[in-house]
Amino acid sequence: MSQRLAHFIDGRRTALDAHRSGAVFNPSTGAQSAEVALASKADTEHAIASSQAAFESWSQVTPLKRSRVLFRFKALLEAHSDEIARLIANEHGKVLSDAKGELTRGIEVVEFACGMPHLQKGEHSLNVGSGVDCWTLMQPLGVCAGITPFNFPAMVPLWMFPIAIAAGNSFVLKPSEKDPSSTLRIAELFSEAGLPDGVLNVVNGDREAVDTLLTDPRVQAVSFVGSTPVAEYIYATASQHGKRVQALGGAKNHMVIMPDADLDQAVEALMGAAYGSAGERCMAISVAVPVGEETATRLRDRLLAKLDTLRVGESITDGSDHDMGPLVTREHLEKVSGYIAQGEQEGAELVRDGRAFDNGSDGYFIGGTLFDHVHPGMRIHREEIFGPVLSIVRAASFDAAVGLINDHEFGNGTAIFTRDGDCARQFCERIQVGMVGVNVPIPVPMAFHSFGGWKRSLFGALHVHGQDGVRFYTRMKTVTARWPSGLRESTNQFSMPTH
Amino acid sequence: MSQRLAHFIDGRRTALDAHRSGAVFNPSTGAQSAEVALASKADTEHAIASSQAAFESWSQVTPLKRSRVLFRFKALLEAHSDEIARLIANEHGKVLSDAKGELTRGIEVVEFACGMPHLQKGEHSLNVGSGVDCWTLMQPLGVCAGITPFNFPAMVPLWMFPIAIAAGNSFVLKPSEKDPSSTLRIAELFSEAGLPDGVLNVVNGDREAVDTLLTDPRVQAVSFVGSTPVAEYIYATASQHGKRVQALGGAKNHMVIMPDADLDQAVEALMGAAYGSAGERCMAISVAVPVGEETATRLRDRLLAKLDTLRVGESITDGSDHDMGPLVTREHLEKVSGYIAQGEQEGAELVRDGRAFDNGSDGYFIGGTLFDHVHPGMRIHREEIFGPVLSIVRAASFDAAVGLINDHEFGNGTAIFTRDGDCARQFCERIQVGMVGVNVPIPVPMAFHSFGGWKRSLFGALHVHGQDGVRFYTRMKTVTARWPSGLRESTNQFSMPTH
Amino acid sequence: MSQRLAHFIDGRRTALDAHRSGAVFNPSTGAQSAEVALASKADTEHAIASSQAAFESWSQVTPLKRSRVLFRFKALLEAHSDEIARLIANEHGKVLSDAKGELTRGIEVVEFACGMPHLQKGEHSLNVGSGVDCWTLMQPLGVCAGITPFNFPAMVPLWMFPIAIAAGNSFVLKPSEKDPSSTLRIAELFSEAGLPDGVLNVVNGDREAVDTLLTDPRVQAVSFVGSTPVAEYIYATASQHGKRVQALGGAKNHMVIMPDADLDQAVEALMGAAYGSAGERCMAISVAVPVGEETATRLRDRLLAKLDTLRVGESITDGSDHDMGPLVTREHLEKVSGYIAQGEQEGAELVRDGRAFDNGSDGYFIGGTLFDHVHPGMRIHREEIFGPVLSIVRAASFDAAVGLINDHEFGNGTAIFTRDGDCARQFCERIQVGMVGVNVPIPVPMAFHSFGGWKRSLFGALHVHGQDGVRFYTRMKTVTARWPSGLRESTNQFSMPTH
Amino acid sequence: MSQRLAHFIDGRRTALDAHRSGAVFNPSTGAQSAEVALASKADTEHAIASSQAAFESWSQVTPLKRSRVLFRFKALLEAHSDEIARLIANEHGKVLSDAKGELTRGIEVVEFACGMPHLQKGEHSLNVGSGVDCWTLMQPLGVCAGITPFNFPAMVPLWMFPIAIAAGNSFVLKPSEKDPSSTLRIAELFSEAGLPDGVLNVVNGDREAVDTLLTDPRVQAVSFVGSTPVAEYIYATASQHGKRVQALGGAKNHMVIMPDADLDQAVEALMGAAYGSAGERCMAISVAVPVGEETATRLRDRLLAKLDTLRVGESITDGSDHDMGPLVTREHLEKVSGYIAQGEQEGAELVRDGRAFDNGSDGYFIGGTLFDHVHPGMRIHREEIFGPVLSIVRAASFDAAVGLINDHEFGNGTAIFTRDGDCARQFCERIQVGMVGVNVPIPVPMAFHSFGGWKRSLFGALHVHGQDGVRFYTRMKTVTARWPSGLRESTNQFSMPTH
Repeated sequence: MSQRLAHFIDGRRTALDAHRSGAVFNPSTGAQSAEVALASKADTEHAIASSQAAFESWSQVTPLKRSRVLFRFKALLEAHSDEIARLIANEHGKVLSDAKGELTRGIEVVEFACGMPHLQKGEHSLNVGSGVDCWTLMQPLGVCAGITPFNFPAMVPLWMFPIAIAAGNSFVLKPSEKDPSSTLRIAELFSEAGLPDGVLNVVNGDREAVDTLLTDPRVQAVSFVGSTPVAEYIYATASQHGKRVQALGGAKNHMVIMPDADLDQAVEALMGAAYGSAGERCMAISVAVPVGEETATRLRDRLLAKLDTLRVGESITDGSDHDMGPLVTREHLEKVSGYIAQGEQEGAELVRDGRAFDNGSDGYFIGGTLFDHVHPGMRIHREEIFGPVLSIVRAASFDAAVGLINDHEFGNGTAIFTRDGDCARQFCERIQVGMVGVNVPIPVPMAFHSFGGWKRSLFGALHVHGQDGVRFYTRMKTVTARWPSGLRESTNQFSMPTH
Repeated sequence: MSQRLAHFIDGRRTALDAHRSGAVFNPSTGAQSAEVALASKADTEHAIASSQAAFESWSQVTPLKRSRVLFRFKALLEAHSDEIARLIANEHGKVLSDAKGELTRGIEVVEFACGMPHLQKGEHSLNVGSGVDCWTLMQPLGVCAGITPFNFPAMVPLWMFPIAIAAGNSFVLKPSEKDPSSTLRIAELFSEAGLPDGVLNVVNGDREAVDTLLTDPRVQAVSFVGSTPVAEYIYATASQHGKRVQALGGAKNHMVIMPDADLDQAVEALMGAAYGSAGERCMAISVAVPVGEETATRLRDRLLAKLDTLRVGESITDGSDHDMGPLVTREHLEKVSGYIAQGEQEGAELVRDGRAFDNGSDGYFIGGTLFDHVHPGMRIHREEIFGPVLSIVRAASFDAAVGLINDHEFGNGTAIFTRDGDCARQFCERIQVGMVGVNVPIPVPMAFHSFGGWKRSLFGALHVHGQDGVRFYTRMKTVTARWPSGLRESTNQFSMPTH
Repeated sequence: MSQRLAHFIDGRRTALDAHRSGAVFNPSTGAQSAEVALASKADTEHAIASSQAAFESWSQVTPLKRSRVLFRFKALLEAHSDEIARLIANEHGKVLSDAKGELTRGIEVVEFACGMPHLQKGEHSLNVGSGVDCWTLMQPLGVCAGITPFNFPAMVPLWMFPIAIAAGNSFVLKPSEKDPSSTLRIAELFSEAGLPDGVLNVVNGDREAVDTLLTDPRVQAVSFVGSTPVAEYIYATASQHGKRVQALGGAKNHMVIMPDADLDQAVEALMGAAYGSAGERCMAISVAVPVGEETATRLRDRLLAKLDTLRVGESITDGSDHDMGPLVTREHLEKVSGYIAQGEQEGAELVRDGRAFDNGSDGYFIGGTLFDHVHPGMRIHREEIFGPVLSIVRAASFDAAVGLINDHEFGNGTAIFTRDGDCARQFCERIQVGMVGVNVPIPVPMAFHSFGGWKRSLFGALHVHGQDGVRFYTRMKTVTARWPSGLRESTNQFSMPTH
Repeated sequence: MSQRLAHFIDGRRTALDAHRSGAVFNPSTGAQSAEVALASKADTEHAIASSQAAFESWSQVTPLKRSRVLFRFKALLEAHSDEIARLIANEHGKVLSDAKGELTRGIEVVEFACGMPHLQKGEHSLNVGSGVDCWTLMQPLGVCAGITPFNFPAMVPLWMFPIAIAAGNSFVLKPSEKDPSSTLRIAELFSEAGLPDGVLNVVNGDREAVDTLLTDPRVQAVSFVGSTPVAEYIYATASQHGKRVQALGGAKNHMVIMPDADLDQAVEALMGAAYGSAGERCMAISVAVPVGEETATRLRDRLLAKLDTLRVGESITDGSDHDMGPLVTREHLEKVSGYIAQGEQEGAELVRDGRAFDNGSDGYFIGGTLFDHVHPGMRIHREEIFGPVLSIVRAASFDAAVGLINDHEFGNGTAIFTRDGDCARQFCERIQVGMVGVNVPIPVPMAFHSFGGWKRSLFGALHVHGQDGVRFYTRMKTVTARWPSGLRESTNQFSMPTH
């Protein structure tokens, strides 16, 4: 029997008016596992009002005391990491070890946010003019909103609200309605750590909730991670309503393999980066760019060998994890399958067809897929597939590889595999991409650095987490001060005769 | 005979197709002094293309060498400061000493931008993982655009392009078409300092030019200073086109005078802050908020006495400067006069009526105006008048004064005059305003700090100049790197037997 | 029967050769509570060797993983805070609530050190020359040493080793041999938190151990807190042996009370700052400086009234804490009593004589003592008494008060009590003291700021904890890099004909 | 006829009592060119007193106004760069282009110091406790002293005093008495730029002047660059007198050439790094470490070919510059020649003997010298020769090369030539040297980074120039402030009934 998932508002799970709901499935079995309430405009406004009220007192708590709640939150997340990872795996479909990895990366942002007393410092200048000082206060904004995708139900929310809240804001989070359980559990644990009610509210919902968040005047800032069309909509709409926005969109990440690369290392990395989490990562590598025909041939041969041993199956097993689980929904499975068909039509060579995969279950499985001889014009190169489909685009030279990537509309992540310092350095300087790996396939920056792409992969000036995250969630106030002389001089004048 | 003013593109003044033009006047005499070409869409695109081309090479110049051009630019601005100040005074109407002050504040941003080799540093982390390093590059964006107002034709453009250009961007500036001469001359001097052609282009124009800048895909970022309705339009439109934007709007700046204030100092400060530059400053004080009736009475009396001695007249004189010159245009004079009439109708007490002022010239003069018993509901309190009109809004208590300011839609600047540390500190913490003066009437942050208001006075996350300015004009790229072992190990293995 | 206290080396308590030992007393009863081993030169070298060995691997652990040990350490300190506070109170004599306060301030440094992955970042510059980059690594030094005083057996060590160790160093700590139990317990908990053996070694000892630490070439840096003569010796000796040193010495902290001060608040603050922990704090206020005779009279009257209610007694009671416990040792009690006699001889007015205190126990008790009409020439003003002895030095004016303080050889802490912004600001700018309180009697900076005095209160350039602490415990390495072109160009040349 | 060189004190050249003097020579001709006054203790104290007096007012000038003097100073240095370079070349012996290069690197520090208003900012924390704020002032120290070597008479002083002075300190500089003219001229130009008299005093002198600077209580900080024995003496002595000190000593810089290096580039770099400025640079490469015998053979062959074309001659010529000029003094020539003899005795292979060089002049010339098969035990490897003598030490492996360098007592600079990212990265992480070049032979950090070696090449915690330089020349004062409520509340209470 399916569970009913509500929102998390004012420190407790609550369904509010619950006129509408959505279904949550276990992608490994295809069975519905829960019904999730979808917030109406009124529900969302209720959550905003709660966060607005909570902001008044939370913003008055000192950064040091706020950070102490974060310290406890981190400890609780670690204590419940198995439980949370299982919630992720069951609703998203990624394998358990991957779910744990996701959570760990999220916990690292909590760790970073524990440093808020230091991070939230302003600057101070003595004597900008004679007897005039100037300093800055970095104050919280008020109610901030986060809208997050299904593919990292724990990590992506944790990129946002720990920093926002440690800085003194309150937060309304709208996670993906496809796999909300881990997000709700995380919010519950923050509450258990001592976070006052209403500082973090979670509303499940769809476009109705989103539009409410984008237009409500009480919401000061919006952080979004998702596809580019939606990111654009979020950025334009929330901006039009005067909010500060950071909206992260889609990706098409290329890995360049130079002739001198350690090919074993590169192939190993590529397998994980292309097929891990069934390719449902905005930092997944979906295009391999071997430089030179010989490199291409060697790469292809080794990939094929590796694909023969790729273990696909349920997210949670009794024994050791599979390499890759199912896709998140039946609809998404069909979309990915459609792309494979599209690739064939466009003339790419379908070297390995994952559609053939069948493990007898009703889960949303597809096998690891490989295209060769893909060309820039093709839709399978232009668009984000978000599935376990790797394309080989052969480049005749280093410059051609760089040009290929710089011509693409997305600029989220990329990588180069080489031993050569010059190649790596040139690549890093010239590539029009926000996150670059040198022999690192998925260069997701650590929590104390910032995550963000270029071009149509990110809208807004500030990246997510790290110092940029702190800047995003604070408002700068600049004070300039001098004082009239008076008391001091009067006590001095008074004393004159006595000396 | 009226001069013809063109654009400054590719290192020289050029009228391009010049189908349309506008008139420039000397506000002190009412005489037209110039005709200015208004850029068409094609003209603007021509300027953008020039800047796009210049970006390719300018962004490759090292920060150190770029900063050297800024050093020379500063020296040239200083050498030509009289000339530039006269251009400002003649077209804007502010008195010469004020024009020089404006330029000085602009030069300070150039001085700040000279530190770009230091300011543009990224962060570096050794061993984010074992053998894995992470660092950030803060790279220029490409073509940036600035759209600036008539009231600071030198300073506001200088808030923007020196930092953008020092960081490696190219820049298209659209200054106000009402007083473009000083801006054009400044651009010329930058060129003379060694800036390559096209790195800074100036197009004169109106909405056609603006819309082109907001929508052209080659423009990466837009900085704007002007009124709030236009700021909102700029922010929404440029955001919709995927650009990063900082849009600064209107203001209604209050000065709170506490009973313990040094009243002589406060009145002196208020006179300059309310009537200097004829009130045409976004940081002008247009509302005085005395706390307590006794304070109000004393303040009003002293203001009246001071108003009797306020010297109004032409911008440039043979002798010492006037306190205040004319308004910028006849239209603006009429608008300000209309507000005075409006205030009377709304029931405010018109204590001194500047409309009575007449010096026999055809200049756009109006005298210093004072209202008392103004209340929050009135339009003269809600709206920005941008003229020499000061309103007294009496507050019964400190909390009432704070509440009054926090309820206003604008949050640009504010000041408190007091000797009391507690009052000042509470005011700084609680006030919902971006720039706060403590016994400082016009708390414009220095160049190495950042300028920006709160609420509907600024749209976007990052303030102007200072570290925020550098962040605005750079794009963060995060590199994560590790290396395969190989050469190092092979030379070690090779050597094994020999030891 | 008395307990035997050993060292903490290589993860366990060990007495090593233990030729010499010292006695530890309970100051509330005068009974010996323990015998503590005093390290020989060989013992100390053993500890250094252990730390040197531990450094090799600990410095290779990533900052992120190191910080995780700190997170667990914080949790353990909190879990054992009662136990640790009792150890402090029993051996030092301060009352339990004060001991807990001390520990809390120490834990805050651990919290700060948890941010090491962020704090240890270097800088990165792209293109310092064309194709040449420059970045910095902030690497650990090796074995660092801390020599800490009896008065804060938990807090002062925690100022040092958490930051040093989080940054990748190993550490040999020599705490005071008068109250080592809490320090040893804290080290044990760090070990329990997962710190590898030898990374933190604690040696109990006296001058023999100290001299070994100062001269052993393996020790890279020395942090010291204690009296000025010893600080000077430490600074000179360790410097002579090529180490980096920060040596914090004595203090004579003045609190200026202006005529406009909130006198109730000032007196309340003064009582705690002068008599709390029996005055055995380097940040204790030992001189009150009322400005003007009237202020002096009012201050004296209220102090006397408060002194009548000062509760002096054992550190640990069944009921609520006393205000103040005993001094640390019989010798120290005699020294403090001697200063009181000295003050009388020098002609100061002994308003309240703490020597009269008697609660019938053998503890090292003395009552709160107050001198009036103390003058700068007197030894009780020149020297640090380190007991519950407060002197009133009357100043005729603000300038006289500032001059008085600036003429003193020490410059650790100071405070001013006033409501007047100008007084406070002038005081902060002009006073030659490292830590300044404005209406804050004991302005110990928070962990994320830095602790340090001026003049003969600190030797060395860098203060303790905060960013300065991180800088002190890291060594900067600056890399400048460019790469020969080669592979990249060859793949490009090779590809030329194929296009 | 020989010129008389005096000191530069209080804004003018003055010989003071001038009991003693030294001779200055033109190393290209061996002729004495000047007599330089050597300061007595009294002379030096006079200079200190002058700087102490100047500090009182200079420290009160705002950072912005101080930086303006620096801007003018930079312009004057550029305008007089030819003149200064000739003064350097004539007294030091380095060729003109090299002298200009030195000056340019010095000017870059002036450029960096122009950013002082930004660089001198402190930190500000709102609400470290409820209603309690904390901020830091970075104030100047007072009189700072610099003691600088003959080999960079312009650059090394410019590393120090521009930053110290921009931060509000005054400065007494004791340059090398061997080539003081350029230093004096630079000081004169700073004065011409508007620096008040006494803020920068230059005393020429020897040990008497040095000891006075090290022990005078008015001197707050000492910066030194020279040989290691003197650096140790400076560090110990000045530390003993309670000053903060940074003392930079000797070097023995190794360049590792890996088998995959671009050998043409490496040899070109090595020639300049070993023989440029006749090897009289603390960042000169004096040891080449080829990895593998084959690399060694190829390297040696190419070096010999290059040595055949090395042009040695006078510093200033009519035509294009020589590659290398004479040594600085006859004594130094003899010392360097002695080292060559020593190397032969120790059994190293003297491949090219520079002692054979003779151009018929009386200048202090010696030719480029090359040893092969040098081993770590030899004095020519252990000690700094400071002449155009390059030693080849062959390493069997990468690890052997790293070990060789890490075993040396000095750790100033080093370089590796390789194309391999892994080699470079491992080298950077593991090498115990402060400044590391990757394919950069002389990795002197830019002005906005910091210069400093490790081990016995630097004593003290803070490096020179860059952010460390600013920290060195400023004293941190931490303010903690809260305010008693009063006026604010009274106006609120008062107003209660009226609402």
